[in-house]
Amino acid sequence: MEMWYTEKHTEHAGITLRVSRTLFSGKSPYQKLEIVETEEFGRMMLLDGLVMVTERDEFVYHDMITHPALFTHPNPRRVLVIGGGDGGTIREIVKHPQVEQAVLCEIDGLVIEKSIELLPSLACELQGNPKVKLHVDDGIAYIKKHTDSFDVILVDSTDPIGPAVGLFEEEFYRTVFAALKSDGIMVAQSESPFFHADIQKKMFSNLRAVFSIVEMYQASIPTYPSGAWSFAFCSKKYHPVEDFDRSRAAERPFETRYYNEDLHLGAFMLPTYVRQNLAIESA
Amino acid sequence: MEMWYTEKHTEHAGITLRVSRTLFSGKSPYQKLEIVETEEFGRMMLLDGLVMVTERDEFVYHDMITHPALFTHPNPRRVLVIGGGDGGTIREIVKHPQVEQAVLCEIDGLVIEKSIELLPSLACELQGNPKVKLHVDDGIAYIKKHTDSFDVILVDSTDPIGPAVGLFEEEFYRTVFAALKSDGIMVAQSESPFFHADIQKKMFSNLRAVFSIVEMYQASIPTYPSGAWSFAFCSKKYHPVEDFDRSRAAERPFETRYYNEDLHLGAFMLPTYVRQNLAIESA
Repeated sequence: MEMWYTEKHTEHAGITLRVSRTLFSGKSPYQKLEIVETEEFGRMMLLDGLVMVTERDEFVYHDMITHPALFTHPNPRRVLVIGGGDGGTIREIVKHPQVEQAVLCEIDGLVIEKSIELLPSLACELQGNPKVKLHVDDGIAYIKKHTDSFDVILVDSTDPIGPAVGLFEEEFYRTVFAALKSDGIMVAQSESPFFHADIQKKMFSNLRAVFSIVEMYQASIPTYPSGAWSFAFCSKKYHPVEDFDRSRAAERPFETRYYNEDLHLGAFMLPTYVRQNLAIESA
Repeated sequence: MEMWYTEKHTEHAGITLRVSRTLFSGKSPYQKLEIVETEEFGRMMLLDGLVMVTERDEFVYHDMITHPALFTHPNPRRVLVIGGGDGGTIREIVKHPQVEQAVLCEIDGLVIEKSIELLPSLACELQGNPKVKLHVDDGIAYIKKHTDSFDVILVDSTDPIGPAVGLFEEEFYRTVFAALKSDGIMVAQSESPFFHADIQKKMFSNLRAVFSIVEMYQASIPTYPSGAWSFAFCSKKYHPVEDFDRSRAAERPFETRYYNEDLHLGAFMLPTYVRQNLAIESA
């Protein structure tokens, strides 16, 4: 028997992947969690039936949610991840030598537990690294307790449905702003310009109401809707292009499979249709 | 009854699109041609069961196969398209005021005929434009008859299987080189860095044996395998980044939905895994 997993990205379009076996299927208080083995993309985690990560293309997402902010901020010592229970973002953060503490705040303990068990190439830094602190808590409640605390906050959330819906609202961005130090940076995944133009328009409007610097950048992630994916770079002081120290990024003391010092700049050079949706003027 | 068209991009992964009706299905001497109506992507052309173009995302491909070369060459007067029978590339070429003649050489007359009939938003310039010349001919045979003739040649081919296999070989690139003027540029679609790394490695090795300037650039095309797509920019004289006249591109006298003067530069800033496959050094 052939098993194929099909995710509809819209009512009328999706991707389909051959699955060889299910490694885990269960429900937490928040969502349904499945981890399956695919033939093409390695192990894959699904939340409520949507692809979160695959072993084969997660390097794109995790490089790009992490390194643009951490190579723009001149001295990122305390970094918070909201969501990201698979551990991939934490794994990238702790590669930066300036980082003294990397805090993960994930609402769903089952995601952390099963990632440690079944996705070790992602979750490898969630245990045994003294710089890493884990909190199983609601991200919004957690950051309300911390003001002026973090250099960088990365919002590694699911789509704006279910438990993550509050993570796309202006009130949440104000709380993040308060939790950042006076030169802090927030990056949040910001969906597909191709399929989610309306979500992006609202999200960037909410972000611009809070942060003085708000820029979109893009990355190509094969298993995400349309493959064209984006991130919101929001900052109090440092601009991701104008204040970028290219030589520090070029001399990074670790390997990256997607990110590099040129791509950092190129990722902010957006297609016309994306600019138009966000009302970005040509430079 | 629901109809879904599924294209396998590898043995184990693909996309699936809801189809409302078939507009044409037939065989030419070269391949099977189908044009169907999809719910998400508008009308879609398939050759031998593979997606060639959809009305919704063709703007990415046609902007990006055309404008980087035509805004790098300072005076592109004679432009040849090999393949491209749907007409989308010709439509973009004739927007450039310097172009005096745009020649299409497509091996399969049925593709041209059915595109004119069923894909008018692509084929709109294939009839009635005095600058456009159509040849139903084998591209390799055609260019052998023309030396020192074209400013730009765009190889708008299918994948390197079936009728297009010769369009990825060194001998063909030597023929293109001879057909170009002394400052000519060739651009060819060059498959997906994510799924077709081996094809790319061979293709770029063949290109480097012929052209002194060979650079890859990328674009995000949702209906193509992995969404991460690429083009080869091959040139005798002009470098696509160093010799690029940004202000001429910024002042273009027509609208573009994907291309712009910043994206032109950003498209050449490649992910690390793509650079490594092609053995490109950091700048």
